[in-house]
Amino acid sequence: MYNQNVIKTKITYGFGNGEAEGSAEMRDLLGGKGANLAEMCRLGLPVPPGFTVTTDVCNLYYENSRKLNVNIKQEIIKALSNLEQKMDKYLGNPEKPLLVSVRSGSRYSMPGMMDTILNVGMNDEIAVSIAKHNPKLAYDSYRRCIQMFGTVVLNVSHSLFNNAIDKFLIKEKIKDERNLSSAALQELCEEFKLILKTDKNYEFPQNPLEILYESTSAVFESWMSERAKIYRKIHKISDSYGTAVTVQAMVFGNMQNDSGSGVVFSRNPNNGEKKIFGEYMMNAQGEDVVSGTKTPLSIAEYMPKELPNIYAELKVVERKLEQHYCDMQDTEFTIENGKLWILQTRTGKRTAQAAIKIAVDLVNEGLIDTETALMAIKPSSLDQLLHPILDPNEKYDVIARGLPASPGATSGIAVFTIDDALHHAKNSNVILIRNETSPEDIAGMNVSAGIITTRGGITSHAAVVTRGMGKPCICGLRDVKIDIAEKTLTTNDNQVIKHGDAITIDGSNGIVVLNEVAKISPQIADHFETFMRWASRKNKLNIRANAENENDVNIAKIFKADGIGLCRTEHMFFSKDRINIVRKMILASDKSTRDCFLVKLEEFQKQDFANIFRIMNAPVTIRLLDPPLHEFLPPLDNKPLLEELAESLSLSFKQIKNRVIDLQESNPMLGHRGCRLGISYPEIYEMQTRAIFSAAEEVNIPQGDNNLLIEIMVPFVMNGREMKLLKAMIDKIASEYDYPNYIVGNMIELPCAALRAGDIAGFSSFFSFGTNDLTQTTLGLSRDDAGHFLNHYKEKEIISGDPFAILDQESVGELIKIGIDRGLAVNPNLKIGVCGEHGGDPTSIEFFADLNIDYISCSPYRVPIARLAAAQHYIKKSKINK
Amino acid sequence: MYNQNVIKTKITYGFGNGEAEGSAEMRDLLGGKGANLAEMCRLGLPVPPGFTVTTDVCNLYYENSRKLNVNIKQEIIKALSNLEQKMDKYLGNPEKPLLVSVRSGSRYSMPGMMDTILNVGMNDEIAVSIAKHNPKLAYDSYRRCIQMFGTVVLNVSHSLFNNAIDKFLIKEKIKDERNLSSAALQELCEEFKLILKTDKNYEFPQNPLEILYESTSAVFESWMSERAKIYRKIHKISDSYGTAVTVQAMVFGNMQNDSGSGVVFSRNPNNGEKKIFGEYMMNAQGEDVVSGTKTPLSIAEYMPKELPNIYAELKVVERKLEQHYCDMQDTEFTIENGKLWILQTRTGKRTAQAAIKIAVDLVNEGLIDTETALMAIKPSSLDQLLHPILDPNEKYDVIARGLPASPGATSGIAVFTIDDALHHAKNSNVILIRNETSPEDIAGMNVSAGIITTRGGITSHAAVVTRGMGKPCICGLRDVKIDIAEKTLTTNDNQVIKHGDAITIDGSNGIVVLNEVAKISPQIADHFETFMRWASRKNKLNIRANAENENDVNIAKIFKADGIGLCRTEHMFFSKDRINIVRKMILASDKSTRDCFLVKLEEFQKQDFANIFRIMNAPVTIRLLDPPLHEFLPPLDNKPLLEELAESLSLSFKQIKNRVIDLQESNPMLGHRGCRLGISYPEIYEMQTRAIFSAAEEVNIPQGDNNLLIEIMVPFVMNGREMKLLKAMIDKIASEYDYPNYIVGNMIELPCAALRAGDIAGFSSFFSFGTNDLTQTTLGLSRDDAGHFLNHYKEKEIISGDPFAILDQESVGELIKIGIDRGLAVNPNLKIGVCGEHGGDPTSIEFFADLNIDYISCSPYRVPIARLAAAQHYIKKSKINK
Repeated sequence: MYNQNVIKTKITYGFGNGEAEGSAEMRDLLGGKGANLAEMCRLGLPVPPGFTVTTDVCNLYYENSRKLNVNIKQEIIKALSNLEQKMDKYLGNPEKPLLVSVRSGSRYSMPGMMDTILNVGMNDEIAVSIAKHNPKLAYDSYRRCIQMFGTVVLNVSHSLFNNAIDKFLIKEKIKDERNLSSAALQELCEEFKLILKTDKNYEFPQNPLEILYESTSAVFESWMSERAKIYRKIHKISDSYGTAVTVQAMVFGNMQNDSGSGVVFSRNPNNGEKKIFGEYMMNAQGEDVVSGTKTPLSIAEYMPKELPNIYAELKVVERKLEQHYCDMQDTEFTIENGKLWILQTRTGKRTAQAAIKIAVDLVNEGLIDTETALMAIKPSSLDQLLHPILDPNEKYDVIARGLPASPGATSGIAVFTIDDALHHAKNSNVILIRNETSPEDIAGMNVSAGIITTRGGITSHAAVVTRGMGKPCICGLRDVKIDIAEKTLTTNDNQVIKHGDAITIDGSNGIVVLNEVAKISPQIADHFETFMRWASRKNKLNIRANAENENDVNIAKIFKADGIGLCRTEHMFFSKDRINIVRKMILASDKSTRDCFLVKLEEFQKQDFANIFRIMNAPVTIRLLDPPLHEFLPPLDNKPLLEELAESLSLSFKQIKNRVIDLQESNPMLGHRGCRLGISYPEIYEMQTRAIFSAAEEVNIPQGDNNLLIEIMVPFVMNGREMKLLKAMIDKIASEYDYPNYIVGNMIELPCAALRAGDIAGFSSFFSFGTNDLTQTTLGLSRDDAGHFLNHYKEKEIISGDPFAILDQESVGELIKIGIDRGLAVNPNLKIGVCGEHGGDPTSIEFFADLNIDYISCSPYRVPIARLAAAQHYIKKSKINK
Repeated sequence: MYNQNVIKTKITYGFGNGEAEGSAEMRDLLGGKGANLAEMCRLGLPVPPGFTVTTDVCNLYYENSRKLNVNIKQEIIKALSNLEQKMDKYLGNPEKPLLVSVRSGSRYSMPGMMDTILNVGMNDEIAVSIAKHNPKLAYDSYRRCIQMFGTVVLNVSHSLFNNAIDKFLIKEKIKDERNLSSAALQELCEEFKLILKTDKNYEFPQNPLEILYESTSAVFESWMSERAKIYRKIHKISDSYGTAVTVQAMVFGNMQNDSGSGVVFSRNPNNGEKKIFGEYMMNAQGEDVVSGTKTPLSIAEYMPKELPNIYAELKVVERKLEQHYCDMQDTEFTIENGKLWILQTRTGKRTAQAAIKIAVDLVNEGLIDTETALMAIKPSSLDQLLHPILDPNEKYDVIARGLPASPGATSGIAVFTIDDALHHAKNSNVILIRNETSPEDIAGMNVSAGIITTRGGITSHAAVVTRGMGKPCICGLRDVKIDIAEKTLTTNDNQVIKHGDAITIDGSNGIVVLNEVAKISPQIADHFETFMRWASRKNKLNIRANAENENDVNIAKIFKADGIGLCRTEHMFFSKDRINIVRKMILASDKSTRDCFLVKLEEFQKQDFANIFRIMNAPVTIRLLDPPLHEFLPPLDNKPLLEELAESLSLSFKQIKNRVIDLQESNPMLGHRGCRLGISYPEIYEMQTRAIFSAAEEVNIPQGDNNLLIEIMVPFVMNGREMKLLKAMIDKIASEYDYPNYIVGNMIELPCAALRAGDIAGFSSFFSFGTNDLTQTTLGLSRDDAGHFLNHYKEKEIISGDPFAILDQESVGELIKIGIDRGLAVNPNLKIGVCGEHGGDPTSIEFFADLNIDYISCSPYRVPIARLAAAQHYIKKSKINK
C-alpha cells in the first residue's frame, strides 16, 4: 500500500538561529508548516528553533506496523540534541527545561483534521522547578500537556477532563478555566493523571522523551483517522502523501511581564496604508489576543513608546517578509522575556479598498508587476468598493439569511406593502419585505432603500431590478414566514420583524440584522482608476452594461463600459406616467384605440432612446418587448384599478376582467412572450422600431464623429423563420428613416435556438446569449420557483452552485458552444455576446472569454468586476501559453 | 429561360376507341390528365376520344413569343381530324357537330390553378342545329362556351357575365341559373357576345378552329398566371415543367332521356363489401349528381332493372380498373344516347372500416400483397375504427373549431361547471365546457361524455386525461368566449351555446355542432385482427401503452400492447377516496402526521400496482410522483375545503392557507416536481417504492412463468447525481423484498438530461424520452399556454405543425439523438423508449424507429395506430434497402 522505497536520505530537517536544512520548496517532504518555518529561518527571522520529521517517515511508520523504528528514534534524538544546543535548554532538565510542541503538517492544508500536542517536556519535577518563578504557567502548561496526551495518544474522552475542570470552576466560582488559580491547576494535574490511570490504566510518563515518541506516533496516527480520510476523499488528496511532524521549542508570551503576544500586518489591511498595523498584549499568549476577552493594544499607538526595540525589529521583520513574499503579510509573534519570536506568517486578508491600494503600491515599489497585481484581487471583491459595507468592527446578530441578490448594505424601517413603502419613504429609509415582487411593485421598489424577498433566486424580478438600481437586495430568505395581514416576518426560531422595526440588510452577504448597524461608505480612489486601466490593457473582451435609464447609462459611462449590451425596453414601460398607457394599449378592444395608445408610447420611447443615444458613443443593443403582456396588467383582485381602466376604455368591467383572464398563463416563462408578441401584435414591435429610428434622427449624430451603432435585438427566437419575418419588418421601417448605422440580431435563450443557430444566423447580424432563460429552459428550472429546493440540492451536492449565478458549463455551456459554432458556420461575421446575469460572474466570464466571443454585458455596477475577471483570464492564458 | 431543345418528336398524342399513343408512364409529357385518359383507353375502356398537346409545346409556346407556330397548328389539325374520324362528328359541322373540352394538365396536380374551356365548337349555326332536338342544351352549352372564352381568353371580369345572368334570374323569378328557360339562355348568348364586344371590342369567332387555337393558347398562358407561379413556388414545382393541353370530345348526360351521369365505386366505400356501389341520374350532367339539388338513384337498387346493359358494362369496367390499379376505384361516367362513357377514375375514398376490409380482401384475392395492404391504410384513420364517428351522410353546421385533442364523436347537453356535470350526468350525457381543466376537475371529467376547453393544446391536462379515458375532447376552441357566470359560450359570429343546450362534438376533427348529430358506432371485425397480425409481423418496434387503471390496462391487453410504458402514479391520487388523504399528507405540519397519511396511501398504491401486475405479463414502467405538490391542493378561493382540511389536521385556516400559498409556483412546469420532490421529500418516493415491491410480493408471480418486469422510472432528472441518490434509495428498499425482477431508470425530458445522458446512464438501466416536456423546454413552449399563438405561427408558416403533436425533429429530435448516443456510450445495455404523446403520432414514430429504440408508449387506444405506423416504416425501409 505504501511506497516501499521511502527513506532515501534524511529523517529530520532542523531549523533555527537563521539557518534551516529545509526550505519553502520542500513542502511535499516537510509539510506546509515545516517548510514555512524553515523558510522564515533562512530569511534570518527569529523563529523558535525545531526540527521536522519528514512525510516519508510517516509512510515508514505505517509500513513498520505503526511503530517508530530504532533508526528513526536515533535520528530524532540527534535532531533534539541539536535543538537543545540552539536553545541552551534541555528536555527533562529541571534547571533549563526545554518544552516543545509536536504538530502535524502535510502537503496540503487540512485544517482541524490532525492532532497537536503542546508543552511536551513537562513532568512533575520540571513543573515544580518552573513553579518557582511562575506557578500558574507551570501547572497550566503541565495540565494541558497531560490533557492533550490523554486525548490524542490514549483516546481518553474529552468529557472526563472537562468534568474535572468544571468541578474546580464551581469550587472557585468562576466560569473561565483560564482564570483558575495556580493551586487549582496544580490539583488538576493530579486529577488528570488519575484519569489516565483509572480510564486507561496508564501512568503518565515522567520521561519526556517517551512522551515525545508517543506524541510523534500519535500525529502519524491522526493522518489515518476517519475524519482525515474522509476529508482527503472529499478533497481528492492521496492517502500516500503522509504528514510530517514538526517539533518546535515552545515560547511563552505569558512567561513574565516582559513577555507578550501579538499579530502584526505589514500594511494597514483596512485602507492599505504602508505602515505596520496590529495589536499586542503583554503577559499573554496568542490566543488571548484574538479571543476578545481582554482588550489588546494598538501597535501603532503604544508599541513605539512601550517597546521601541521590538517595534523597530518588527518593522524590519515585516519589510523582509514583504520583500520575500511580495505581498502584505499577517504575522503572529511572541515576546518571551524581552525576546521577539516569529511564529507564523501568511498573506494578510484585507478589504477590497486596501487590496487595490496595496497592489498598486507594490507595483510602484517594484515588488510585483501589474499582472501579479491584477491577479491578486478577487474580482467579486470589487463589489465592496462600489457599495456601502457593514463596518467589520461592529458586532451584530444575524437573524436570517438568504441569497445575496444585489450587493451593498443599508438600514431602514421594515415595510410589507407597496403603499407602506411609498408612505414611509417620505420620512425615512424603508426596506421592503415581500414574498416576491412583480412589475407593478416597481414604484414601491424605487423608493425603498433595500428589498428582501422570501422567494426567488438571484435572477428573480426583485434581484434583477435592484441590481439595475444599484440597491441592496436579499432573495429567497430561508426559514421565515411572512404574514402580510399582520405585517410581520417570523423566523424559524420565532424572532419577529414587525412593520416599523429598524433592520439592516447586507445584500453582498445575504444577511438580515435587527436594528441599525454602522456601515462604511465606498470610496473610489485614484488607485482604483490606475488598477482598472491596467485591467483594461490586459483584457480583450468587450464589457458592456445592461442599462435602460439615463442614470444607469451614465454609470456605465463612468465605468467605461464598451457599450450597452442590453437595453430592456419593457423597463421603460413601468414608470408611473406610462404603465396605464401600456395597460390601455393591451386591453384596447379594437385596433384604432390600441394605435392611439401606441402613438403615445412611441413618443415616450423615442425620448428614452434619444437620451441614451446622446450619452453613448458605442454600440447600444436595444431589445424589443420581451415579457408576456399580462405582466403589465394589474392582478384580478385589484378591482378599483380594473374598473378605472374599464371606464377609461369605455368597456365594461366584465370585458376588462375577461381580457385579463384571457391573457393569464400557467407558465409565463414559456409563454406568449418575446418575438412571439412581435409576430402576434406586429404593431408593438413596429412602434418600438419607429421610436428607435426617429430618436436616432432627432439626436442627429454627426456621421463618422460617433461610434453609436444601434443593434436591434429580437428576444426569445425559436427558429430562422421568426427572424426572417421580423428582420424584414425592421429593415422596412428603417428604410423610412435616415440612420443606416444599425444591425438586427437576436437573443439565443432557448435550446432549440442554439441547435438551430445555423438557420437563424442567415437572418441575424449578432447573437446575444441570454443565459438566464437558457439556464431555465435547459435545466427546467424556474428562477422564481427554484428557491424551493436549490439549497437542498446544494447541500446534497447534486449541483455545485446556483446555476443562475454560475453558468452550468456542462449543459448550458455546451449549448452556447453549439450555438456559436453553427451560427459562425453560416455567418462568419456574426457578432457574439452574452447578456444574462452570468455576464457579471467571474468564473462564467472565463468560460465566455475562452469561446472568443465579442462582448459580455452585465449590470453597470458589475462592469469593473467583469473587466477584471476577463483580464485575469487572459493573464492566466498567456502564462500557460508561455 | 426555357429549354431551347424542347421539341424532339411528337406534338400531339391521340387516344380513343381502345387505343392510345400515350400511357400512364408519360405523365411528364402529357400531364396527369392526358396520361390517365390514355391509360384508360389502353385498358379498352369507353373513354371519349381526344388528343393531348404535350408539355414541351407549352415551353415552345413561350419561346415563340407566346404564339402557336404553324407547325403546331398543323399538328393540332391532324390530331383533330383523327378525333373527328373516331367520333364521326366534325368541328363546325352543324349536322354532326363535334364539341370538345380544352383542359390543362401538368406533371403535378395543381388544383384550381389553371384554366379550362368547355363546349369549344359552338357557334350560332350549331346552336340552332342542336336546339332543334334540345334547345336548352344548345343555348346553355353555347352561353357557357362564350362565358369561359370571355373570362379565360379575353380576361373579361366575371361580374359582367354574372350581372347579366342575375338580370334573367330576376326576370324569371328563380334563384338557380341551371333552371333558366331555353329562351332566356338564348338571349343570354346574345348578351354575352355583346359583353365581349363592348368590353374588349372583340367579336366572338364563328370559326370553331380559331376558338380551339385561342383556348389552347389560353391554357398555356394560365401556366404563367400569378396564382400558378405562387402555387409552384410554395410547392417547389419548377416553372420549366409546363402544362399539357388535352382536347377531348364532349359527351352530354343531359342530351336526352336515354342519357345520364353517375359515380360508381368498385366496392362499397362505407363497409368494403365487394359489390359495385354508387349513384346515377338520368338526363343529368356529372355536376347534377354531386350537387345535391336533385336526388340521384342508387346503382345497386335501380340500375340492374332500369339499365341492365349499362350495369353489366359498369361491373366489367370496375373489375378491369381494380385489376389494373389494384385498389378500389371511384369512377365518373356519363351515358350519352345509351352509350356508356368513362370520364375519370381514381382511387376511391373509404371509411377506415371499409379500408381494412378491402385491403384484407384484395390480399385474399391475390391482387395485392400484405405489404401493399399495410401501406394502403393511413395509421391515423384507425382512430375511426375505435371510436364513434359522425355519420358522413348527415348534414350539420359547424359552429366552432378547435384542436382534435381526443378522438370520437358524442352528443350531450352543455354544462359549464363541475357541479353541473356531476348533477346532470345522472340523467343524461353531458359535455363539459371549460376554459381549461385541472386535476381537481377529475370527478366532473369522469362523468362527462366529452370535453371542450378553450385553452391548451393537444397535450393539455384535458387532452391527456380524456385520451386516457377514451372519450372525445376538443381543446383550444378558437374565437369563442366563455362566460362562466352566465354559463354560455359565444362564438365570434355571436352563436351561443347555453347551459343545457344539446351539442355534438367530434374530437377526431375538432368540431362543435349545435344539436344532436347521428353517429356510426365502431365495429371491430375479423379483418381488423388479420390486418393487425400482418402489421405485427412487419413491425420491429415494441409498442407499449400508457395506463394506470385496470380499465386502461385491460384495453392495452386487448390491443396486444408489449407492456405498460408509462404508469403515472399520480393519476392514482386523484380519485375521490384518496385526494383528501394526499392533500392532508402534503399539508401535514409534522413528519409523524405526514407518515400516517403516507401509510394510508401506500395501501392504496399497493392495491393499484397489484391489479396491474395481475393483468400484465410484460414490462411495466412505473413512474414515481411527477407533478408539483400544489397540483393536488384546492385553489385558495375554495374556502370551505381549506377549512375542512384545516380542521381535520388540527391546524388553523391561516396555517393551511399559508402552506398552500407557499407551495404555489410561477412556472410549475419548471418547478419543484419530478425527482426534485423525491429528493426534498424522500418519504414520498420511499412510500411508492415500498408499495411497488409489496404489491409484487402479494401477487406472488410464479418465477419464470411470467414476464412481468418492473421498471421503476424517475421523472424530470437533470443529472447523474440525482439518479445516483435515488437509485440507491430504491435498491435499498428493494433489498427488503423478494422481487428481484426489476430495474431502475429515468425519464429524459430536459435538454440538460439529454446532454448529460452519459453521466446519468452510469446509474440508469433505461431511458424513457418524455417528449412532451422535452418539447416544452427545448422550444420554450408551455403546452397550456401555446394555444395563444400556435395557430398564428402555423398560419405564418413559422412552424410546420403543432410540435406537441408532431415531434420537432430539428431540435427536440437532435437532443433525443444526443441523449441516446451518449447514454449508450456509457451503458451499452441501456433500454430506450419514448413515452410522450408523440409515441402515438405516425410521422414521429418513423423518426423513433430510425433511432433503433426499444419501444414507444402511447394511449391504449393508439396502440394499433402506432403499430401500423411502425410497420409501414419498416416496410418502406426494406424497400429502400432492396
